[in-house]
Amino acid sequence: MKRKGMLVIISGPSGSGKGTVVKNLNPQKGYALSISLTTRKKREGEIDGKDYFFCSKEEFIKKRDQNELLEHAEFCGNLYGTPKSYVDSQIANGKAVILEIDVEGALQVREKFNDCVLIFLIPPNIQELRNRLVGRNTEDSLTIERRLTRAEQEVKFIYEYDYLVINNEIEKTVESIDAIIEAEYLKPHRNIDDIENFNNN
Amino acid sequence: MKRKGMLVIISGPSGSGKGTVVKNLNPQKGYALSISLTTRKKREGEIDGKDYFFCSKEEFIKKRDQNELLEHAEFCGNLYGTPKSYVDSQIANGKAVILEIDVEGALQVREKFNDCVLIFLIPPNIQELRNRLVGRNTEDSLTIERRLTRAEQEVKFIYEYDYLVINNEIEKTVESIDAIIEAEYLKPHRNIDDIENFNNN
Repeated sequence: MKRKGMLVIISGPSGSGKGTVVKNLNPQKGYALSISLTTRKKREGEIDGKDYFFCSKEEFIKKRDQNELLEHAEFCGNLYGTPKSYVDSQIANGKAVILEIDVEGALQVREKFNDCVLIFLIPPNIQELRNRLVGRNTEDSLTIERRLTRAEQEVKFIYEYDYLVINNEIEKTVESIDAIIEAEYLKPHRNIDDIENFNNN
Repeated sequence: MKRKGMLVIISGPSGSGKGTVVKNLNPQKGYALSISLTTRKKREGEIDGKDYFFCSKEEFIKKRDQNELLEHAEFCGNLYGTPKSYVDSQIANGKAVILEIDVEGALQVREKFNDCVLIFLIPPNIQELRNRLVGRNTEDSLTIERRLTRAEQEVKFIYEYDYLVINNEIEKTVESIDAIIEAEYLKPHRNIDDIENFNNN
């Protein structure tokens, strides 16, 4: 019998390096990225069903109202959400589906999807976070201060998460996430078939 | 600040291979074995404080009554128990303390020691367990049947455990246990200092 996968949520403040970490997860270890549904216009080079699922505002609202989205939010006038059907099909296919999302979205998902694993990623300290944000050279100082304040607020939710990974080195962080997933696959409730198999043979 | 260790309980039916697994855990990864207190006579070659802590029946009962044992049981007229002070000192020293114990003992420990990790080890199925017990050639068929019945009873408690590891190959099993411990160290409640450090720097 094929092993079911699981939903893995990765959150962390802007500058925690979560995007890089997610890119470095090895797909051969059974990871799949969640794909968002969005009403934003498709940009050149983007592929529907790979980068995003693109749809109209009406379709989005219909899916939302039919409870087909695990979470949803608005950014700059566009709607974004996580389609439950895609996550479900990947899990049935044995994948650990990675969903990179902010704290608010993560807590929305956990309410609708009980069996998910929440990982919080942080840099070693606020000073390091500031350095990373300044080093990017893409935001003005007001934006950086706003992001740091937001980071401090988000960190208050760490105890809602299952795991905390301090992102010092990318290789070590990826190893930690691999270990978390490996351990999660060993929880008894994910191995009901094996337990029954043991008893019946 | 030094990272605190944790108490790791490994249970599994006779023939599950838990003894071999425990022997194969790499001490350099921060494992330490729990040492039992016993009233049994010291055998030749055994070292007090290494193989066991040896003591008189009176001393044992005193420790038990003063709640200094995490669990205790009687075998063949001798008393055996797990001294809390030794486990505490190893944990303070950053060790993952391994306690190999039966289901009954494990559940006794969990009541007294909230923050422990329970791992249940089983062979792939009862037939394999029977083969292993027969292959040992040390027990008569009545004893083997009794052990198999006991295994079936113990397996009912799997859902009281945090993890289930199917012991197919020793190397893979040891890797699984390493992953479990690595993941457990990443739980937020084991990283309160890092979280405070993040907020204060």
